[in-house]
Amino acid sequence: MDEKTPSTTDASTREARRRNRQHGLVIVNTGNGKGKTTAALGVLFRAWGREYRVRMFQFIKSSTSNYGEHKAAKRLGIRIEPMGDGFTWLSKDLERTAALAVEQWERCREVLRTGTEDIVVLDEFTYAMSYGWVPVADVVQALEKRPPAMHVIVTGRNAPQELIDCADLVTEMQEVKHPYTDQGIKAQPGIEF
Amino acid sequence: MDEKTPSTTDASTREARRRNRQHGLVIVNTGNGKGKTTAALGVLFRAWGREYRVRMFQFIKSSTSNYGEHKAAKRLGIRIEPMGDGFTWLSKDLERTAALAVEQWERCREVLRTGTEDIVVLDEFTYAMSYGWVPVADVVQALEKRPPAMHVIVTGRNAPQELIDCADLVTEMQEVKHPYTDQGIKAQPGIEF
Repeated sequence: MDEKTPSTTDASTREARRRNRQHGLVIVNTGNGKGKTTAALGVLFRAWGREYRVRMFQFIKSSTSNYGEHKAAKRLGIRIEPMGDGFTWLSKDLERTAALAVEQWERCREVLRTGTEDIVVLDEFTYAMSYGWVPVADVVQALEKRPPAMHVIVTGRNAPQELIDCADLVTEMQEVKHPYTDQGIKAQPGIEF
Repeated sequence: MDEKTPSTTDASTREARRRNRQHGLVIVNTGNGKGKTTAALGVLFRAWGREYRVRMFQFIKSSTSNYGEHKAAKRLGIRIEPMGDGFTWLSKDLERTAALAVEQWERCREVLRTGTEDIVVLDEFTYAMSYGWVPVADVVQALEKRPPAMHVIVTGRNAPQELIDCADLVTEMQEVKHPYTDQGIKAQPGIEF
């Protein structure tokens, strides 16, 4: 018996059509300005509208546990996976932080290998590379071996040159004017987090 | 009888709390790179997660009628309002285009005046100013008179200096590497639109 339900057929036809049409991009959002993560969220939102399979891995865990994007993602069924407990910018146990980042990268690498998603976001991942926790060469190799239709977005300041070299689309978000440094205004919920 | 249903009370309490906490920002995403509109969509997504009232006005009507963001917004009940029919980058009737842009701006100005939204996005609005269809001084005045808690995001290349002067947060998205110019890859659905 080689029976397929109509819904399975529809889904696989849809997927084949999508994959044929797609040329997977490696996208890097870097620079010292705002909008690196936010633009990645915008892509997830857009792609969710097209019923693509999307997933975000975060490499910075904020002390604010109720990020607007987590609330929204939960309501939509989008998977956003924060890094294990305990890491913030204020983290003092760097050994533990490094171990958590490596674990998170292993999860990402598995997703890049198996190709179960259409778009994968590695949020704030550049730091894991620039701190030397994850070798850039491993990242480039995993990106090059991924399924050809899969899009990957990497965000964070100071993207390493090897990553830029292997990327298709690189944007630098530059700070022109900033209310927190210029006017002492605090980060606003809904806008910043 | 001055009866209020519990849900009305809850809503107004929630609103008062939110407004007290908020300092409305004027945010400008400009530059020749990607991510200006996409970052604004990311903010809408985040804010939607927090149950804020959000609305996007678009000043460029694309020839692609099924934009991923429109599909997503429809599913979420977010209002994204394209400009009237007929305008694309290929538009030849500039007089009609100018009239449509002015009409769209009048709708925006009314929303800025009445303060019925928490976050308003004026997408690709810089072009309406740089083409001289909407005077920058009118825009700055409307922004300055808006309710103090309202956030406004303006996107588009070549943001006029007067707008930058009145903004709180300005980011320039700079193109570092682009697959369409560098490799001849076409715009990809879910990523670009």
